[in-house]
Amino acid sequence: MAIEEKNADEIFKEFKEQSITQFFRKNSQMLGYSGKVRSLTTVVHEYVANSLDACEEAGIFPEISVEVKEVNESRHLVTVTDNGPGIPQKHIGKALASILSGTKFHRYLQQRGQQGIGAGGCTLFAAITTGKPIHARSGTGKGSFECDIAIDIKTNKPLITNMKTTLEDFRGTSVSGEFGDTKYERSDHGVFEYVKRTALSNPHATIKLIEPDGKETVFPRSVNEMPKRPKQTKPHPLGINARDLLDFAHVTDKGNISSFLMESFSRVSAAKIDELRGIAKDINFDKKPRELTWPEAEKLVEVFKSVKWIAPETDSLSVIGAAQMETAMLNIINPQFISVTERKPKIFKGGIPFVVEAGIAYGGDAGKKTEEGTKGTIMRFANKVPLLFDGSVCAITEAVNQIQWKRYGIRDFGDEPISVFVNISSVYIPYNGIGKQAVSQEPEIIEELKLGIMECARKLQIHINKQRNMHVRESRYKTIMRYVGQLAADLSDITGENKGQIESSLKHIVESKYDMGKEDADEEAVESASSDSSAEE
Amino acid sequence: MAIEEKNADEIFKEFKEQSITQFFRKNSQMLGYSGKVRSLTTVVHEYVANSLDACEEAGIFPEISVEVKEVNESRHLVTVTDNGPGIPQKHIGKALASILSGTKFHRYLQQRGQQGIGAGGCTLFAAITTGKPIHARSGTGKGSFECDIAIDIKTNKPLITNMKTTLEDFRGTSVSGEFGDTKYERSDHGVFEYVKRTALSNPHATIKLIEPDGKETVFPRSVNEMPKRPKQTKPHPLGINARDLLDFAHVTDKGNISSFLMESFSRVSAAKIDELRGIAKDINFDKKPRELTWPEAEKLVEVFKSVKWIAPETDSLSVIGAAQMETAMLNIINPQFISVTERKPKIFKGGIPFVVEAGIAYGGDAGKKTEEGTKGTIMRFANKVPLLFDGSVCAITEAVNQIQWKRYGIRDFGDEPISVFVNISSVYIPYNGIGKQAVSQEPEIIEELKLGIMECARKLQIHINKQRNMHVRESRYKTIMRYVGQLAADLSDITGENKGQIESSLKHIVESKYDMGKEDADEEAVESASSDSSAEE
Repeated sequence: MAIEEKNADEIFKEFKEQSITQFFRKNSQMLGYSGKVRSLTTVVHEYVANSLDACEEAGIFPEISVEVKEVNESRHLVTVTDNGPGIPQKHIGKALASILSGTKFHRYLQQRGQQGIGAGGCTLFAAITTGKPIHARSGTGKGSFECDIAIDIKTNKPLITNMKTTLEDFRGTSVSGEFGDTKYERSDHGVFEYVKRTALSNPHATIKLIEPDGKETVFPRSVNEMPKRPKQTKPHPLGINARDLLDFAHVTDKGNISSFLMESFSRVSAAKIDELRGIAKDINFDKKPRELTWPEAEKLVEVFKSVKWIAPETDSLSVIGAAQMETAMLNIINPQFISVTERKPKIFKGGIPFVVEAGIAYGGDAGKKTEEGTKGTIMRFANKVPLLFDGSVCAITEAVNQIQWKRYGIRDFGDEPISVFVNISSVYIPYNGIGKQAVSQEPEIIEELKLGIMECARKLQIHINKQRNMHVRESRYKTIMRYVGQLAADLSDITGENKGQIESSLKHIVESKYDMGKEDADEEAVESASSDSSAEE
Repeated sequence: MAIEEKNADEIFKEFKEQSITQFFRKNSQMLGYSGKVRSLTTVVHEYVANSLDACEEAGIFPEISVEVKEVNESRHLVTVTDNGPGIPQKHIGKALASILSGTKFHRYLQQRGQQGIGAGGCTLFAAITTGKPIHARSGTGKGSFECDIAIDIKTNKPLITNMKTTLEDFRGTSVSGEFGDTKYERSDHGVFEYVKRTALSNPHATIKLIEPDGKETVFPRSVNEMPKRPKQTKPHPLGINARDLLDFAHVTDKGNISSFLMESFSRVSAAKIDELRGIAKDINFDKKPRELTWPEAEKLVEVFKSVKWIAPETDSLSVIGAAQMETAMLNIINPQFISVTERKPKIFKGGIPFVVEAGIAYGGDAGKKTEEGTKGTIMRFANKVPLLFDGSVCAITEAVNQIQWKRYGIRDFGDEPISVFVNISSVYIPYNGIGKQAVSQEPEIIEELKLGIMECARKLQIHINKQRNMHVRESRYKTIMRYVGQLAADLSDITGENKGQIESSLKHIVESKYDMGKEDADEEAVESASSDSSAEE
């Protein structure tokens, strides 16, 4: 039928609302479900990130198993099992089959998951592509249960069926789902690479992957120390905007604006309040926070920027740790050479702390094996989560590209057995775009990333120079040694001395001259490289 | 405070839900609010697209005014006023300040807006960046009203204040809002370019833009015909997946599966049902649709693909129209040469119709003026909406790049005064990624885009050849004419004939040889080019 011309009332007869689940059903690419390979990786990512977060919060060394079975070419059964704290029975539905709910998004705390979307998104994706509920089993140490969970697309509510409780002594969570429109592939964007890189950035975890062909790979725990726990901190006055300030003010239980500011933000002392009062004379710091207006909030944010602050606390950050990174890289990449660094926290946009960790592995299994030889590779991480997509627009890629690798003995980054590993940690990672797969190319972030990578590159250069000098010395040594016999015979003829003795003395001289342990020349080369690169900094 | 190790109950004490508005507050880049220039363009786009949709639905020639005023460098007041059908007072709140509600998303109909997010997203963006409500004024022809509207971020509900109703005879809607984190710029991604391109693709509309410096530009209506109204059609069996089929079946009021299929889908006849029954023997076509199971839905979708169908109806599509496009391009670009085409509808993924319209403008104000001269430019549209971002990953860009422009007389596309204009229309545009600014690079779409563009390019070639041949003839003519005087004098000496007469005869011969109207050579060139390019097709 043709649509007739309509007046406003007729048009608005059609007015309807849709649920967030209906929205994401039509826009599942927003959640990472675009492309068959990426969709499968997204499912594994969501479950593994939840497992790691839960284990960390409960202080448990994670033991995670990921199994992908092929149902058919474009349909896979994914099972992720952990030894975490478990999910209480009364929360299982919302935890796994409701979008925009969770334990994480409302805390100012660095975590892998932050949106309350991940697991619910998986359940939705299963519903869209196979119509099947997911199966969950969980135990908190006081008995366990298992059930099927679907998501009601119209209402965004979980639908639980087949609930069975047992007394079985199982602690942890196991989630299993069948997903269509998926493809298993051992590419840079696939599940294997995702799991391998997750193991690299989480050396305190044991992760097992069982691939569709039955092949089992275990990335065992390589450090016996839990990562430093991040603290839930207060935001810094330089990291807040007027909207957030106003919203905080309207829900606080503090009696006046002064005490609200001191209690809700870090680094706000009584002395600072006096200083702020002196500048923002129009604002009554003694009135109730809920009486704060937008213009006053804007004014405060402006005034915050005009005074000096102690830098924000940085113990909200949870890093991998240089020693841990090194152990993991040695274990998994097994390179000839390795260098890692954990930089000091830096501040982004004035008030948001972040930390860069970088590592370079060279030789051995470093780089990426291809048919045309080994290529340089960049492994990007944000809050220890591997970023496998959108590399071309990422600040980390940009930082690697901006470095003049020739200065560090790497003639062509693309053509050498080198892996650059970078992890950026922050409560607020400035992602570029929507897929959360690339870090925004902010100059202050790129700069700090470069400093971290160059720090490792300088150590790599020492190694490469050493190797090259060693090689040069070795070939000179060999060349000279070839003439020692003849020279000894000639000298013996001329002097009448014993040829064997002359030869032995000559060899001794040559050997002491070309001592393979000698490093003076290298040290010099390194020093000059160091000052060279500081100019670049 | 440090976070203590927690058990599951302690962890889940923190369990909370957030509203869709809270989610988009933290992820406003998902709605197009990323970067100051783009954010401002997004606001204008949302309001203008709503105005155009409403006018079209009500059968009114749109007259839209867009005004951008600078509040300060990074804050702008945007006012968009239309002469559309208006918004009924009881719907104004939800229409402008609730996310995921609207009149459009649940209809199988080609429209600009389709998500129920646009205007609500603007209200949210104002709330985040300036804390101000938007101001709306609307009249449906029976009195009018104005009010302020904010969005309650926690509940996703509209908050209306200062409602005033009047008897004023105003018909239309005017929305005005103050937005921060914005920048006005006359770049390829800015508001001016957006409005200009919207005028190009909507020649039935008059659009006025008042820029922050007070400059007023009017793009007047250039055609006196409303665009063909799209019909709300039924989906084609080849354009449906199991999830949608099942959901349709579970809400239909039809008594059995046969009648459900015939009523809900296009091209399903009683004879087709018999054919389907013959193949899907396991499925009982006489049972209630709500008893359809997922495996049966999957089976049906599979069986749909195995039988022959009449192609889908294509009157769900609303195109610009070749004549309308040409008029608009002449008006706005004022080129030396223009060629446009409206292709026949094609089918995407077996069941989704789409139409490509293409145009090429050459010379005059075509191309993009830069300091280094005029550059070739691509103007991309989807459902008549200009796409200003993410061009590098768009199928339209890819199609233009794949064309061997040299064959059409364009030596270097990047370096000529040429504008390629492409509009793709479909109920379901396969966008690439999340920003809805690029069409997915599907081979069948790129192919059809190329055919459309090449059709115009062949006509451009005729024009260019004509110009070049004209130029060659002109310069030969001038060269020969230079010798005519001398030759006439020499011949006069030899023969004793009158010099003036000889000269006049010679001139006549030359002029008839180099007749500027003669086109045979051109025609030949064109023919061969045509067959050349058909090989490319």
